[in-house]
Amino acid sequence: MNQRARLRALASALTRKSTPALLVTHLPDVRYLTGFTGSNAALVVLAGSRVSARLFTDGRYTAQAKQEVSSATVRIAPRSALAEACAYAAQHATVCGFDRTQTTVATLATMRTAARKAGADGNFFKPFDGAVVALRVVKDEEEAAIMRRAAAMTGDLYEGLLSWIEAGMRERDVAAELEHRARLAGAEGMSFETIVAAGERSSHPHARATDATLQPGDLVTLDFGIVLDGYCSDMTRTFALGFGGGTIPPRLRARWAEQREVFEAVLAAQTAAVRAVRRGVTCGEVDEAARSVLTELGWAKYFTHSTGHGVGLEIHEGPRVAKAQSQRLESGMVITIEPGVYLPGRFGVRIEDTVRVTDDGAEVLTPVHKGWLEL
Amino acid sequence: MNQRARLRALASALTRKSTPALLVTHLPDVRYLTGFTGSNAALVVLAGSRVSARLFTDGRYTAQAKQEVSSATVRIAPRSALAEACAYAAQHATVCGFDRTQTTVATLATMRTAARKAGADGNFFKPFDGAVVALRVVKDEEEAAIMRRAAAMTGDLYEGLLSWIEAGMRERDVAAELEHRARLAGAEGMSFETIVAAGERSSHPHARATDATLQPGDLVTLDFGIVLDGYCSDMTRTFALGFGGGTIPPRLRARWAEQREVFEAVLAAQTAAVRAVRRGVTCGEVDEAARSVLTELGWAKYFTHSTGHGVGLEIHEGPRVAKAQSQRLESGMVITIEPGVYLPGRFGVRIEDTVRVTDDGAEVLTPVHKGWLEL
Repeated sequence: MNQRARLRALASALTRKSTPALLVTHLPDVRYLTGFTGSNAALVVLAGSRVSARLFTDGRYTAQAKQEVSSATVRIAPRSALAEACAYAAQHATVCGFDRTQTTVATLATMRTAARKAGADGNFFKPFDGAVVALRVVKDEEEAAIMRRAAAMTGDLYEGLLSWIEAGMRERDVAAELEHRARLAGAEGMSFETIVAAGERSSHPHARATDATLQPGDLVTLDFGIVLDGYCSDMTRTFALGFGGGTIPPRLRARWAEQREVFEAVLAAQTAAVRAVRRGVTCGEVDEAARSVLTELGWAKYFTHSTGHGVGLEIHEGPRVAKAQSQRLESGMVITIEPGVYLPGRFGVRIEDTVRVTDDGAEVLTPVHKGWLEL
Repeated sequence: MNQRARLRALASALTRKSTPALLVTHLPDVRYLTGFTGSNAALVVLAGSRVSARLFTDGRYTAQAKQEVSSATVRIAPRSALAEACAYAAQHATVCGFDRTQTTVATLATMRTAARKAGADGNFFKPFDGAVVALRVVKDEEEAAIMRRAAAMTGDLYEGLLSWIEAGMRERDVAAELEHRARLAGAEGMSFETIVAAGERSSHPHARATDATLQPGDLVTLDFGIVLDGYCSDMTRTFALGFGGGTIPPRLRARWAEQREVFEAVLAAQTAAVRAVRRGVTCGEVDEAARSVLTELGWAKYFTHSTGHGVGLEIHEGPRVAKAQSQRLESGMVITIEPGVYLPGRFGVRIEDTVRVTDDGAEVLTPVHKGWLEL
């Protein structure tokens, strides 16, 4: 496990910023640093060259914490894990950082009361945002290996499903079958609510699977991901439902041609953005690579969201791959590339890969067929 | 839709507490008050006898907000829905309440900046916790009807699954089949990660479904719920896997007898707690009804959690049905009653119903067989 290395990196960051301690309460952060997967945890990390971290949880997790955690000492708090963590921090440091984006106003008040009881003053807690998130954006080899497996399973599930899907099924049936297969294949769950959007519904970027049925001539967008060993996968494909060998009904001919045109535009945009990925490029440049293709082809005004996002222990994490984002890609970041075009009331297309940034390009973790496909 | 009535109740609460406006950002609260199900929303409710509420969201939800929301006016914010909501509040009120338990320290800073730009002073936002949650604990008729349907579907799924489960299956297979059936039956999803815990694993209250297989002689705990129209159901049953008509192997005889003894103790405790439910009784008294039965029978030290919790738009909401809780039950509250006994390293039993509090008792929403059952 690399958790000790992660804690060391965090402790160094604290030392560099003259912050003697950090309180970590966001559960994915705690899991990243210690491996603990319980639902109640507060972790105190002390600055310095030696790893010194103590995890507080409750009696439900006595056995589990012992089994999962080796990078930190574990303390089972009889009352409040959070309050004990604050008291411990107050006993071992003069100031303690906390993440304002992960701490509610009410929780901060609780933290202050607990630290005060242990002798700390009113300025004990000071803002220290994003320290763990900053580490998490770059995935180490252990994480990359898990994410490759998760992405490969995602691709296999998609390919398996293609030979099962047919016109007349409800979107809901497709989602149910996919999720069932994911479970049987060993996924811990889905990383977000599965999107199956057919026909007009594909024009909604965030369509849920409904009772609507898949019709010949429809475009179908399938956007889903699984969770494996805590890590999320994320992939989107759009395919067409053909006419079973028959000819295209006259009333659908114009739409069919336009669907194909939009599809190829999105594919070109997506491919261009994947090609733009490499260490040192800004997130804004990757976004622009997709957007400029769509601008040139005349569809940019229907590309209403950003190109992608980081993915890992959470389905949405840093970096943001969006317009004008100046953050530079680093080797080991894992991001999605998912441009889309949505024609209101008509149809939409989105194609998404998850890729890992390398020194000279992108490792595509989801290398399943993404070109035009008619079922 | 009762959303206008809910907003009226909230506006009255604001008036009573001399608070001219409330900012609501917790999504289940927003859904409760407006019906909006999007993932980005900020709602401003003004005090007074007339309903005056304005919902802020972004361009992804233009069509959806129009379709879902009738109790509030809708504003699509080109940049930040939250910042626009704060500016709107600052223009219409001198002070605005916010919920400290639902607002991060970082978000509060953003809110203050936005309000200041619109002319508010540094004391514009004041703590106003739990106002919507307080309304949500009592379910109105519309909510009760949905929760009855969700609970009935949950019971049907359980009964259907019983005729399918057999020894040799993995816990994971059972969870997958259950969730697949739930999806096909029309559930929007599961309300929490399905628990299937067989044999020794049933001694962990929060066991996940693993690759472990169901063995003859095992107790199996199945704890699951679905989401229907946004509302959660929650039910637990524990059953035994018999020996296929054969006799009990000598090595299992003592455990088999003890499993039965613990099961009957939990059933007695659970039944006693359901009987204790009625308007005016405290949550602590309901908890004590279960706990005292287990004390009398000698198992209380293995009942390591509280007796139950409220359930609704969220799987865990108020009230807490736990030791010494002085909150009184009100007619229309929907709570779980779920005592359990867990013998470390051996086995465990939990039985859970969801019940609706009435003037003179409890309406059990999950009235499926909960007595001893051997498959």
